[in-house]
Amino acid sequence: MPPRQVLIAVIGTGGVGKAFLSQLATLSTRLAAAPTPTALSLIYLSRSTSALQSPDYTPLALPADLSNAPAPLALSDLAAWLAAAPAPAVLVDNTASNVVAESYPTFLSKGVNVVTPNKKAFSGAEDLWERIVAAASSVGGGQVLHESSVGAGLPILSTLTELVGTGDKVKKIEGVFSGTMSYLFNQWNPVSGEAGPSFSACVSKARNLGYTEPDPRDDLNGLDVARKCTILARLAGLKVRDAEAFPTQSLVPKELEGAESAEAYLEGMKKFDGEMETLKNDAAKEGKVLRFVGSVDVVGGQVKVGLEKFEKSHPIAALKGSDNIISFYTERYGDNPLIIQGAGAGGDVTAMGVTGDLLKIIKTLH
Amino acid sequence: MPPRQVLIAVIGTGGVGKAFLSQLATLSTRLAAAPTPTALSLIYLSRSTSALQSPDYTPLALPADLSNAPAPLALSDLAAWLAAAPAPAVLVDNTASNVVAESYPTFLSKGVNVVTPNKKAFSGAEDLWERIVAAASSVGGGQVLHESSVGAGLPILSTLTELVGTGDKVKKIEGVFSGTMSYLFNQWNPVSGEAGPSFSACVSKARNLGYTEPDPRDDLNGLDVARKCTILARLAGLKVRDAEAFPTQSLVPKELEGAESAEAYLEGMKKFDGEMETLKNDAAKEGKVLRFVGSVDVVGGQVKVGLEKFEKSHPIAALKGSDNIISFYTERYGDNPLIIQGAGAGGDVTAMGVTGDLLKIIKTLH
Repeated sequence: MPPRQVLIAVIGTGGVGKAFLSQLATLSTRLAAAPTPTALSLIYLSRSTSALQSPDYTPLALPADLSNAPAPLALSDLAAWLAAAPAPAVLVDNTASNVVAESYPTFLSKGVNVVTPNKKAFSGAEDLWERIVAAASSVGGGQVLHESSVGAGLPILSTLTELVGTGDKVKKIEGVFSGTMSYLFNQWNPVSGEAGPSFSACVSKARNLGYTEPDPRDDLNGLDVARKCTILARLAGLKVRDAEAFPTQSLVPKELEGAESAEAYLEGMKKFDGEMETLKNDAAKEGKVLRFVGSVDVVGGQVKVGLEKFEKSHPIAALKGSDNIISFYTERYGDNPLIIQGAGAGGDVTAMGVTGDLLKIIKTLH
Repeated sequence: MPPRQVLIAVIGTGGVGKAFLSQLATLSTRLAAAPTPTALSLIYLSRSTSALQSPDYTPLALPADLSNAPAPLALSDLAAWLAAAPAPAVLVDNTASNVVAESYPTFLSKGVNVVTPNKKAFSGAEDLWERIVAAASSVGGGQVLHESSVGAGLPILSTLTELVGTGDKVKKIEGVFSGTMSYLFNQWNPVSGEAGPSFSACVSKARNLGYTEPDPRDDLNGLDVARKCTILARLAGLKVRDAEAFPTQSLVPKELEGAESAEAYLEGMKKFDGEMETLKNDAAKEGKVLRFVGSVDVVGGQVKVGLEKFEKSHPIAALKGSDNIISFYTERYGDNPLIIQGAGAGGDVTAMGVTGDLLKIIKTLH
């Protein structure tokens, strides 16, 4: 019996993309040697300006050299080409692109599977989300998995999907969903109570270590966490218009939203250190620490993102480093939630979520 | 297009079995109404003394009344009957039976899938384990999933399988794998440091609350934890002869192993409360608490089960109620492990793991 064929098209060759290609190589070797072998063929690889395309759906020669490659296919042409392939195909979107995200319904409705860490499609406009769900659940539609869009490789979305799929009632989801926010608050307001550097100094340090976006406002405005909460809320069954449809506390002061550079912002932050210190002291008076959390109240239909106070013994307070944590409060689990924690960012663990999703889809393809 | 058919045979109608049948009913309704519908048919249901069997692979009438039903089929006959069915079949073993466990290779080699919370097959003799792996990976073999054999519905085995499957290197697995042991030590040696009842009094109380086996020695001898560690070690790639092939600390004193009743054992325990108190005080001198843990050192190839001391801030020390916790230390996750915690026992959450496994297998069946 010839091996089952699965064809892979990858968009994006950044940090996650590179880590994924490395994991794909290992996975291909393993699956080719299995008692019931599967042949994974990388047949398309693109970055923003260039792409390699197999002429006849046979595997690309590796390592791929994109330097002199032609321009990428239009996404609709890529979808049509993959849909016409002689074996099931999976699009792996390792970008953070809105444009690619908006094309998922096209791929899915043609029976092409999609796996991605890209949050955009699932946390954007409700209409796009609904078209994705409809395309994926239509007869002959492709499957879509995006574990790494929340908490990187941590088994968060798969767990939520299984809770819902097996009939549990999810009541509330709460957690720290940003590695950057986790690091900042674990440093600035540790449970040990030690007085450390000011909040602005913590942000500058985190930026120097590469733990923030190049402009830290992209972390501190809370939108990244709001996007992740949107995804969780939708998978839990809530209707959410988009990631701006509920209260999100931005830690970027109004006056600094327009600061012309990251440096000007960091300098301007110093003026607000006193305000942050007051919040921290108020929490300390109750024996608590501040953390930046997202919560989805499924029963009440409320989503919110912002600072909350936690007892020092609470698992959210006790988090370390830049770890993420998520608590699922459900009917079956009762008072003590199901908790998952660990690194929620980084190329290897993010790629792991993508590779894991790919494996799950491969198992369903004959 | 007629719905896809999946045939289900269930053995066992105890606590987990009943909870599973309830979840199966809900799942059947949901899958029947999906855009691409799947028809789940319960075609066989047995307990130790009686069984209902569909005459022609059509669904049994529900609710099933086993009271006047004939004796169960021999397992080999059941396997042959399911293998001859006109649609894919799944055996759901909701027992703790060794005999059923030993029959898995027969079912799997005939292409019948197996899902179960029963630990016996995966923690028993290495030969049985190897025959199960061989049958499941042979061409045309059935799939076997047993999430609930460790930590009930917590996503422990699926996470371990995905870490390994995507190429991470698991270095060490450590945790509290027994709800009973978790409850006992959280009560007897809380992080708050309060002096509470003696160890024997804690055991008696736990037994009265139904948190232990009828004879608490079946929890306190450590074998249940050793079985779970055997399963984890094997999935992580270690060869383990059986659950008695590595050091397991029994908390049942030698003198009481032969006590003729649970009551006699509980009475005899009082004599040993002083020894336990000494261990607790020794830990307290280091600012630590005692917990009963299992650990799998994958790098060193060592498995062990027993009492360990933990800093009060350690997630294992901070556990609540009868929760389980598991930490995966891996190459990708670095110093901070991937941690999963929550209820690891109880009919509903155990059945959830079984139902989740069934769902995973259904997704792969066309």
